[in-house]
Formats: sequence, C-alpha cells, structure tokens
Amino acid sequence: MLVIKIGGSKGVDLDRFLDDVPSVSEPMVLVHGANYEMDQVSEQLGHPPRIVTSSTGQKSRYTDRRTMEVFMMVYCGKANKTIVEMLQSLGVNAVGLSALDGGIARGRRKPQIRVVEDGRPKVLRGDYAGSIESVDTKLVTLLLENGYLPVLTPPAISHEGEAINVDGDKLAMELAVALGADKLVIFSDTPGLMRDVSDESSLISRIDRDEIGQAMEVAQGRAKKKVLAAREALERGIGQVVFADGRVEGAIRKALAGAGTVIG
Amino acid sequence: MLVIKIGGSKGVDLDRFLDDVPSVSEPMVLVHGANYEMDQVSEQLGHPPRIVTSSTGQKSRYTDRRTMEVFMMVYCGKANKTIVEMLQSLGVNAVGLSALDGGIARGRRKPQIRVVEDGRPKVLRGDYAGSIESVDTKLVTLLLENGYLPVLTPPAISHEGEAINVDGDKLAMELAVALGADKLVIFSDTPGLMRDVSDESSLISRIDRDEIGQAMEVAQGRAKKKVLAAREALERGIGQVVFADGRVEGAIRKALAGAGTVIG
Repeated sequence: MLVIKIGGSKGVDLDRFLDDVPSVSEPMVLVHGANYEMDQVSEQLGHPPRIVTSSTGQKSRYTDRRTMEVFMMVYCGKANKTIVEMLQSLGVNAVGLSALDGGIARGRRKPQIRVVEDGRPKVLRGDYAGSIESVDTKLVTLLLENGYLPVLTPPAISHEGEAINVDGDKLAMELAVALGADKLVIFSDTPGLMRDVSDESSLISRIDRDEIGQAMEVAQGRAKKKVLAAREALERGIGQVVFADGRVEGAIRKALAGAGTVIG
Repeated sequence: MLVIKIGGSKGVDLDRFLDDVPSVSEPMVLVHGANYEMDQVSEQLGHPPRIVTSSTGQKSRYTDRRTMEVFMMVYCGKANKTIVEMLQSLGVNAVGLSALDGGIARGRRKPQIRVVEDGRPKVLRGDYAGSIESVDTKLVTLLLENGYLPVLTPPAISHEGEAINVDGDKLAMELAVALGADKLVIFSDTPGLMRDVSDESSLISRIDRDEIGQAMEVAQGRAKKKVLAAREALERGIGQVVFADGRVEGAIRKALAGAGTVIG
C-alpha cells in the first residue's frame, strides 16, 4: 500500500505528474493540496488570504467561514475534480473525496487562535481549522477493495461535524499510518530534503532509520519539520517516507525507484 | 429506495431542507444542483454565465473550459461539501461525489452547439456539455450497502473521460432508473406542477399513470417538460415521481406524505 501526497504549488504540472499513475501496480491513495490556486481564487473573489503567525511562531491560513467556502471550492471542487477527470481520461477509476466525506479524518476544531500581528498579540475567532485526531479507514478501504483509486483532500471534519482546515501533509501521514502503508511519498517543488535550501545539489538522498537524530541536527526550518514528521511516521509503523520532486517527468516512477530523500 | 433531487435555486434554505433527512428510514440518494450560486460566482470571477438558445429553442448554459472549472468549484466544491457538512453535523454519514467520480454517469460530449444569438444562427465550440447515456450503479450501491448516504451532483463524464455538464433533474432520473428506485422526488421553489404557473393554488395534486396523456394537454412550458420526464421515468420502471416544494418546513416529510404533484 502506497500513499502519495502531491502539493498544490505553482511549479507542479499535475497533468504530467499524473501520467505515471496507471503504471503503479500496488494499491494507492492520492492526497493533494491546492495552496497556490487557493491564494489566486481568494484574491479573485475579493477575500485575500490571511496568513497568520501563532504565538509559537507557526504560520497558518486563518480560515473564517468565507475562507472555508473558498477552500471547498478550490480544494474539493476545481483541484479534486480536475485530478479525477485527468485520471479518468487515463483509464484510472478515480473517486475524489474530501476528508470530511464519510467522516474520514476527524479532529478537534480550534475556533480561536492566538496570533501575533504587527508585533502585538491578538485573538482571532471563528477559525475553521484543527488537527486530525483519528482516521476512519472504512470508506477508503472499501474503495480500494473495489478497484477505485481514492483521491483525497482537506478539509477534515470536527467532532461536531464542521469542516476543518487541516494540513495536507499531515492528512497524508495520518492516512498512511491508519492504512498501514508500506510507503508514504510526499512530492513538492523541491528535489527532496536539502542541506542548503538554496542549493538543489545539496540533496540528502538517504537517511537511515537510526541516523535520524544526526539528520535533525543539520536540518533547518521546513526540512527539520519534515524530518520530524517522517520520524513520527516511521515510529507509527510506516515502512518508508520519501520526499521527492513533483516537477520532473516520470516523478512517481523516479521516486519509487529511489529518487529524492528516502527515510527509513 | 428513494432518490431525491434538490435544486440550486435561491428560494431553497438547504439547512432547513436537510433537517428532515435523519428521519427518512429507507435507503436514499440525494442529488443536488447549484444553479443560482453558479451564476453568482461566475459573475464574481469575471466570467459571467452565458445562457444560449439552441436552434430548437432549448436554453442551456454554454460551458467552455473556464465555466467547467467554475462549475466544479460551485457544484462539487461549495454546494456538495456544504451539504455533506450539514448532514454530518446531523449525524448522517454523507459522502459527496460528482457523477464524474468512479464513472457514475457517462455520456457523449457534444463540443459544438448550434445556437441562435441576436436572431442569427451561430456555432459555438469547446462546450463541455452532453447527455447521460449510461449509469454505473456500482459505487452508489457500495456506499448504500455500507451505511453511507451518497450526495451526488453534476458534472458527469464523457466516453473520453472529460467532465460534462448535464442536467441535474436528468441525472436524478437516470440514477433512479438504474437503481430501480420506488420513488423519485424532485424539489424546487414551486409547490409542484400548477395549471397556472402564476397561481400557486392551481397545484395539480395527483396525476394517475393513465391520465398522463390528458395532463400533457393542459401543461405548459416547463411543466410540460416535467410531465414528459415523469412519464419516461414511469415507463422505465420507477414507481412514482413527485414534484414538491423544497422551500417549506419539513419538505421531505411532507412530500413523502403526499404533498406536491404525485405522478404514478
């Protein structure tokens, strides 16, 4: 079992990326984002993105109700259905779902966030965001067993049944853990984890399970966060975590053949 | 088995409409539109709706690629996921899908349409529209058998795997026929079929199967089209077709108890 996450960044050509999917022989779940498109459509609809910094320094999208509506439009509408359409035209029987459907990924909504804006602490209310606490694999398993390829995207669902904005990488990881996946491949617009983010040739091609501690010492910023997430995934039973380049021709094939940063 | 269609017109309060769903005991499929919202968002995104009249006098939405993207956003994104969210918060395990997912409803794409604009015939190309030719019930049946409530919306899928804009009422009917439904209830912002469209008290409350011919003689415009569709549905094995008011409190309960126009 393979779980693949493809980001929603500008540099990824989805059409080309998905070309590889018919050649994958093992059962697979695809998780996607739509971050770049979300910013575009939000601007077009006159409700520009509001990226806030929490008191602990973490950046996130403030998701008021209107933002959640746009989020549904972009992630569950345009992005999800365009991917399903592309896969269907390749002969892959894809089924697009949000993690809200069938209560796939559930978590606690945190309607208030403490942020720092212009150097001053502030409380924002009405946030439709949260973190995943449990995954119900029933629906995804049902689809896999019946020959469908599940294509999943945030939002997830709160314990009260509200849509909540959750991190796409986190959704992919929680799904992979719950499904007992052998491999989790996270594609983005970089070649993988790099020693120096400004130098693509500084790619770290492999981190063995028992070297993660050392890797943490050299990793910086986003890379550190990714190594942390990978370590957690391995500890929770996933065989291997790969960070790979979604921009290249044959991206999935290359990643499955060992390209990118292989952790595990 | 019950198939319910709820339109996407301005007068329908979805939140109130869906309140009834938990009380329905038989297996059910919900089909929805989002027409009113589609017009709004198209305007907001600077790609206003283009309603064209075919050479035979039929009106339809010209769906170029950009319109299809907005269509996915509104129908499959905002409308579909808002309904799923509302149902989930009522404790109903809803799963939202387009008829594109899993190849549920397939048809022929007609990329060219002959229209009449300003009194002159014209050919428009690049239309993502078509009519449903077959329904694959496998996915919907799988969901029903496992306790999920399928919530479906256009688009459907062409034989080549492209998204095609199809009529929502037609999708509901084709699904009802393919699933062998006992009843198809089509809700809109009128009390049902009326002798005089401007007079809600002229509601036709019942049309027996063998009286459809007579009913056709008095029906006008849209009502005539609806009676025709109902006759076809009955001929193709559906037990009963009901046209009912989606605006009232307890709409589903009332329709199942005999309100609206009952045909069959």
